[in-house]
Amino acid sequence: MADLSVLEGLIQALRRLPGVGVKSASRMAYHLLQHDREGAELLSQALHQAAAAVRHCERCYTFTTQAVCETCLDESRDTTRLCVVETPADQSAVERTAAYKGLYFVLMGRISPLDGIGPKDIGLQKLMERASDGVVTEVILATNFTAEGEATAHVLGEALKRRGVQVTRLARGVPVGSELEYVDLGTIAHALVDRRNA
Amino acid sequence: MADLSVLEGLIQALRRLPGVGVKSASRMAYHLLQHDREGAELLSQALHQAAAAVRHCERCYTFTTQAVCETCLDESRDTTRLCVVETPADQSAVERTAAYKGLYFVLMGRISPLDGIGPKDIGLQKLMERASDGVVTEVILATNFTAEGEATAHVLGEALKRRGVQVTRLARGVPVGSELEYVDLGTIAHALVDRRNA
Repeated sequence: MADLSVLEGLIQALRRLPGVGVKSASRMAYHLLQHDREGAELLSQALHQAAAAVRHCERCYTFTTQAVCETCLDESRDTTRLCVVETPADQSAVERTAAYKGLYFVLMGRISPLDGIGPKDIGLQKLMERASDGVVTEVILATNFTAEGEATAHVLGEALKRRGVQVTRLARGVPVGSELEYVDLGTIAHALVDRRNA
Repeated sequence: MADLSVLEGLIQALRRLPGVGVKSASRMAYHLLQHDREGAELLSQALHQAAAAVRHCERCYTFTTQAVCETCLDESRDTTRLCVVETPADQSAVERTAAYKGLYFVLMGRISPLDGIGPKDIGLQKLMERASDGVVTEVILATNFTAEGEATAHVLGEALKRRGVQVTRLARGVPVGSELEYVDLGTIAHALVDRRNA
């Protein structure tokens, strides 16, 4: 069907999305063309606008449409603390706790040797510069508690300590609201080691 | 983060894709903006072009960029046979067998009472007109062998028979290359009922 190279092109383009194979891409293309042309146009415009307008904050490297993001510009923030997270979604999770008033550094990734992502690919150099600006006194490592997140925290922690910056890591322990019976053993073991005075 | 309404808009637009929730949409948006801006622009253009150019074939209702699709225009085709499929992907599967030289009618869906999709929503009327053009002598129902596909075949078959059109259905049976031990019982039961002379 040579007259359908436009549809073929759309399916190929949809496959650039992470986690979308040829079957999902076809399903998405058929759905948009059959039931939601408005959605197709909307998505087309949103992609174009975002690709043109979104860039990285010069200070914390998160996504922003300005040179420096609103969080970094917020003068009510505690500039002596820097919380390092993997993604803007993680930053948003920390932010929603309302328990942190310092600034952020967003790695936009994690060290992942299997995917060929090393320290250079997650802006280690940029973080080092940011953390040694003379104002930051504590860097809180809030990478995920996965194998890759822990490895990232380790590498960053070692590099930061060598520069004399105080480094802390989010506490590991039993999640709020959980019953011990259903908590995995590794978590309980960590909670025992890190136990605190009641 | 008010300066990120562009990113928010992209995430919302990605959620219009079938099977994409807010987590997947965020992941897609971050991936495109962080690692594949070219892919974002490509997808934006592909969506716009497809939404503008792709329409339905006047004869078989499949997707095409012309008034009548290439398959319907192909003069070497047997115009007396009409194969009814649910989607262009199904049509493509039948086409790849090279065992069918007739024409197609693409329903662009199936009857699905749970989703509120009735006979009118899948172009029953259009199919009736197409099948009663005086040239078509046999309609081959090739909807899927799922509950919904079978129901669709039943409804279409009854309506077509009332108009005096010969209606056939794809044979049910044991798939080529499969071992009986691993074939589901319903399929074996159907294969027994529909057994043929060796």
